Amino acid sequence: MRQVSIIGVGCTPFGKLKGRSIKDLALEACREALSDAGVAPSQIEAFYLGNFAGGMLARQELTAALVAGALGIGAVPATRVEGACASGGIALRHGYLMIAAGCCDVVLVAGVEKMTQAGTEEVTAALTAAADRQAEGSTGLSFPGFFAAVARRYMHEYGATLDHLSAVAYKSRENAQRNPRAHFYGKPAALDAISHSRLIADPLRLYDCSPISDGASALVLVASERAKEFGGQPVDILGSAQATGSTTIQEMDDLCSLQAVVKAASQAYEQAGVGPEDVDVAEVHDCFSIAELIALEDLGIMPRGEAGPRAAAGETRVGGRVAVNPSGGLLSKGHPIGATGVAQVFEVVRQLRGEADNQVPHARIGLTHNVGGCGGVATVHILGAR
Amino acid sequence: MRQVSIIGVGCTPFGKLKGRSIKDLALEACREALSDAGVAPSQIEAFYLGNFAGGMLARQELTAALVAGALGIGAVPATRVEGACASGGIALRHGYLMIAAGCCDVVLVAGVEKMTQAGTEEVTAALTAAADRQAEGSTGLSFPGFFAAVARRYMHEYGATLDHLSAVAYKSRENAQRNPRAHFYGKPAALDAISHSRLIADPLRLYDCSPISDGASALVLVASERAKEFGGQPVDILGSAQATGSTTIQEMDDLCSLQAVVKAASQAYEQAGVGPEDVDVAEVHDCFSIAELIALEDLGIMPRGEAGPRAAAGETRVGGRVAVNPSGGLLSKGHPIGATGVAQVFEVVRQLRGEADNQVPHARIGLTHNVGGCGGVATVHILGAR
Repeated sequence: MRQVSIIGVGCTPFGKLKGRSIKDLALEACREALSDAGVAPSQIEAFYLGNFAGGMLARQELTAALVAGALGIGAVPATRVEGACASGGIALRHGYLMIAAGCCDVVLVAGVEKMTQAGTEEVTAALTAAADRQAEGSTGLSFPGFFAAVARRYMHEYGATLDHLSAVAYKSRENAQRNPRAHFYGKPAALDAISHSRLIADPLRLYDCSPISDGASALVLVASERAKEFGGQPVDILGSAQATGSTTIQEMDDLCSLQAVVKAASQAYEQAGVGPEDVDVAEVHDCFSIAELIALEDLGIMPRGEAGPRAAAGETRVGGRVAVNPSGGLLSKGHPIGATGVAQVFEVVRQLRGEADNQVPHARIGLTHNVGGCGGVATVHILGAR
Repeated sequence: MRQVSIIGVGCTPFGKLKGRSIKDLALEACREALSDAGVAPSQIEAFYLGNFAGGMLARQELTAALVAGALGIGAVPATRVEGACASGGIALRHGYLMIAAGCCDVVLVAGVEKMTQAGTEEVTAALTAAADRQAEGSTGLSFPGFFAAVARRYMHEYGATLDHLSAVAYKSRENAQRNPRAHFYGKPAALDAISHSRLIADPLRLYDCSPISDGASALVLVASERAKEFGGQPVDILGSAQATGSTTIQEMDDLCSLQAVVKAASQAYEQAGVGPEDVDVAEVHDCFSIAELIALEDLGIMPRGEAGPRAAAGETRVGGRVAVNPSGGLLSKGHPIGATGVAQVFEVVRQLRGEADNQVPHARIGLTHNVGGCGGVATVHILGAR
């Protein structure tokens, strides 16, 4: 397998972006990434687009061809992939594989979602399409409900407290104040307001849940041996993995761990030749505050059961032992489903280039962690500065 | 790139399959393919699933992980791809690439769609998600309308007649009478009934349009060098191509040709080292009767403008110069969107093994042609008997 580098990144602001379609958003992110990379559309050899709910929320499918056509990248293959909230990570994984395996030298990867035109009820219903409707749909369980159950179990198992959850949400909101692209940029929240916000699904409160956002992000990947031909500053993909896990709660042996994440992380670390202790900055899938704690443990970044107190002690802040979600994460940067896995990489690439808005000092190794459904799919990518 | 073979195939009946979910259908096809191949679920290294409207029509996404979990293929990557009606062809293309590029040795590919629980109006609306809603959605054009415009232009350009269209529909319906899996198996139609059926979008009549069907199909792909380890009779993938084309009518220079098909066909022929004259049997994307005529010309199997009279003269029947859609095609076998591109290969593999229900004598080279949207995506695969 050949070495692959990311030489260009782009990301729209996340939030309520009225009057802009899926195509508009994806185009904006793709053009920024191409410009950042110094790559012309005609140099792209394949395009992968992560999108989840285009059909359900915007009645738009075939989005990869749509965006490819508007970008002017010609007749090269344009493929949409979907794995619920991990759609973006899967798109990256496929762009990576195409180059690593020698099928292409230059690939464009993007993720996009347009959600805010729909109401909260409609979005929540669409998101439950990422659960197994046949097996558990009749329970009426939504994703806030699922992660509330996870939180309760985690608190029971490990003695975590509501303050630990609030610490995650607060850190996320603080980080977003230094990220102009974040949904909640310019909207700080006090810890007290967070921990007393209204209940969504007990014990999760409003600030424990990621918002409904529009947005898109894009990356230009090249074979590392050709990186110097282009203008962008390369960041190397050291490890890339995708794994499949439980799609129903009844299949989960342990509510406090997602097996697909454990598997993907182990593969990605092995390929990269690094361990969790080497990670300087991580963008993890904090769709809910509890999800960040479990992610850090499944990734081996925190010992099992200790993520809560360590988060509360500031270990995951920028400047702490390992910076987690310096972008604001899904909780405060926003979570336009298909864009998330790509936007995580946008952030980590800029961290490793030393040009992030909320820069982690001396960041050399970064990790992204993207999860779909209740752990049905997970991707983990490990990136390295040059 | 390594040689890839198909060693197992499976396909549900197509039609109104009440009480069976997307997962049920995909599982049935996958299990048949695994059994046919003599491959255990634990031997699968990656899974690709083509599906179009799971979210819109059945509120079920994350389908690849769902099916993978139920099949018991473990934590290996499971990826859903979507390219409208070419979703199945794209799934095959990715299974092929994973093996050809050396990432995997054994890959399961499937396509599935569950449509008949929705009404015709709802399905037609969902299908328009494969058009560019922003650019042309406001015109109210549906796919029957688009292909009606294509038919009118084709008749104007080349002097084709309504009888030519009816000949395609009649041949398709006749072929389906020998395919027990076809939606219209056991439902023959007289040529006169076809050409006098009710108008759907002038000049297209009821029998010129593919029905709304449920169904799934699956394939087991292996590195050819390992094919003899398993039980199935191998058929080789000689050529595989995916191309991107126009997603709006306004971009099309010529309504009578889909550039993505021309491009993909040219690449697939070149890779396979064969030409259109070598094709013994073809399963082409006849979503409407007119689409079969244009497909045959874009594929180089018929000279431009001559497909109509040649179809009427019987050249495309089983036993004719080149057998086209011996399965009954989309028109009469049915068109469960995501399944179609895989089911075409199911048919051609069985033809090349000499075990098809409607066997083409001495078939050695087969072709499948799968199109999404108004030509936004096309895949072409060329298969060879051993």
